Amino acid sequence: MRTIKLIIEYDGTAYAGWQVQANGVAVQQVVENALGIIVGAPVRLYSSGRTDAGVHARGMVAVFRTDLEIPLTAFSDGLNVQLPPDISIHHAEEMPDTFDPRRDAKAKLYRYTINTSLRRSPLTRHYAWHLRTPLNLDGMRSAAVQFLGEHDFAAFRTSGCAARTTKRRIERVEITQEHDVIKIAVVGSGFLRNMVRIMVGTLVAVGQGKREVESIAGLLADPTAGSAGPTAPAHGLCLVEVYY
Amino acid sequence: MRTIKLIIEYDGTAYAGWQVQANGVAVQQVVENALGIIVGAPVRLYSSGRTDAGVHARGMVAVFRTDLEIPLTAFSDGLNVQLPPDISIHHAEEMPDTFDPRRDAKAKLYRYTINTSLRRSPLTRHYAWHLRTPLNLDGMRSAAVQFLGEHDFAAFRTSGCAARTTKRRIERVEITQEHDVIKIAVVGSGFLRNMVRIMVGTLVAVGQGKREVESIAGLLADPTAGSAGPTAPAHGLCLVEVYY
Repeated sequence: MRTIKLIIEYDGTAYAGWQVQANGVAVQQVVENALGIIVGAPVRLYSSGRTDAGVHARGMVAVFRTDLEIPLTAFSDGLNVQLPPDISIHHAEEMPDTFDPRRDAKAKLYRYTINTSLRRSPLTRHYAWHLRTPLNLDGMRSAAVQFLGEHDFAAFRTSGCAARTTKRRIERVEITQEHDVIKIAVVGSGFLRNMVRIMVGTLVAVGQGKREVESIAGLLADPTAGSAGPTAPAHGLCLVEVYY
Repeated sequence: MRTIKLIIEYDGTAYAGWQVQANGVAVQQVVENALGIIVGAPVRLYSSGRTDAGVHARGMVAVFRTDLEIPLTAFSDGLNVQLPPDISIHHAEEMPDTFDPRRDAKAKLYRYTINTSLRRSPLTRHYAWHLRTPLNLDGMRSAAVQFLGEHDFAAFRTSGCAARTTKRRIERVEITQEHDVIKIAVVGSGFLRNMVRIMVGTLVAVGQGKREVESIAGLLADPTAGSAGPTAPAHGLCLVEVYY
C-alpha cells in the first residue's frame, strides 16, 4: 500500500467545514469523492486536523492509502480536474507507512485577517472580519506576548471541545498592519477547538479597550477566573501551513 | 441641486461590468436602484469611466444630483444598507456643480494581479490571473518602461473602442512580486477600452519569452506594425483609485 500526502487549498465559504458531518457539504467529502473517481474505489482521508465552517486553508494536509500504481500527478493535476474551483490540490507526495498527519505535526501556522475600513469591503468580505472600531495595536501586542510558551488554554476553547488535555504551546503571535488590514499570525504546537478564534476575539477586545491587557495572563493561570472571547468569526481565519 | 460624489468598491465577479447594458446586471444599475429607494425618485449616476464584466474596483467614482436635504451619511452608511454584499460605498462628499468625474480625473491607478503557483489557487480565483508558466520579471520591467510617457496606444485597445483620439499618457508601470503573486500597477491620464488588460497581456508575453522586449516600442511608434496582446482576463484587474 502507498501512503500519499496531499496539501490542499480551499475557500471555505461554501462548506460546513473540513470534516464530514450530517448537515452541509464538507471539504473532506468533496475531495474523497473526487479521489474515488480516480482510484475507482471509496477512499478515506485522514487530515492534520479540522477546520470550522467558513474557515479557509492554504495548506491543509491529508493522507490516504492506495495500492494503485499510477503517477503522483494523478493525485494533483488529475485530482484538480475533478475538484470544484474552490478546492485545489497543491502537492501530492509519497510518504512512509508510519506517517500520521495529526500526530506527526510539529506546529501549525494560522493567519487571521481583520479589516478596519470605515465601511464594509466587498473584496475582502469572505476573507476578513470587518470591524469599524479602531484597534490599539500596541495594547494587542502586549497582550499577545502572554500567550507565548506552554499554558493551560482551557478558557480558550468552545464548550464542544473534547480534547483530553488543554495544555498547548504557542510559539509565535505576530500582529501586522498595512493600511486598513490587520493580520494576526499564530504558530503553535496544537490547538483546541475554536482556540485561534477565541484568542483573536480576546486580543480584539483588548484592542478595543473592553478588556485589560493583563486579563489574558489571568485566564491562562486560572481558566475559571473569567471568560475569554468573544469568538472571532470563522471567515477571517486561514490554516496557512502545517509543519512536520 | 446638490452634486454628490461617491467612492465605490465592488467585487465585479457577478456583474456584466459597471455600465448599464442589455445583458446581465450592471453595478451602475444596482447602485442607481438603491439610491432611488433613498431619494424616492429615479437617480442617474455619472462615473469616472466604465469597467468590463468581471473587473473589480476599490475606488470607482460616480456622481449624482439631488435636491434632497438629508445628511451625507444617508448616501454612505444608509446606501450600504440597501446595497448587496458585493458593492459598498466608501465615501460620499458634496462637490461643486461643475465637478465632472470623467473630465476632471487627472489620472487613474489600476492594479493587475497574477498568480504563478504551479496549481490553481481557490482563494484568489476571482481576483488573479492564474499562469503556470514562470515569468521573466526583468524582461517584463524592461518592456514596461517603454509605455512611460505620451504615446499613440491605438494598438492597445479592443476593436470596439470608440475613442476619438488614441494618444494617452502613462505615468507609472510598476511590477512587484511576493511569493507566487505578481502585481502590476499602472497609472495613466486615461485609458482606451481594454488598454490595461492588453498592456498586461503584452507584458506577460514578453515575460514568457513569446515576444521581444523591444516590440512594445515598435507598436507604440507604428500601431499597424503588428498586434499587441493577448488581452489579459478581466478578473485580475482592479480600478484602485481615481485622482483629481
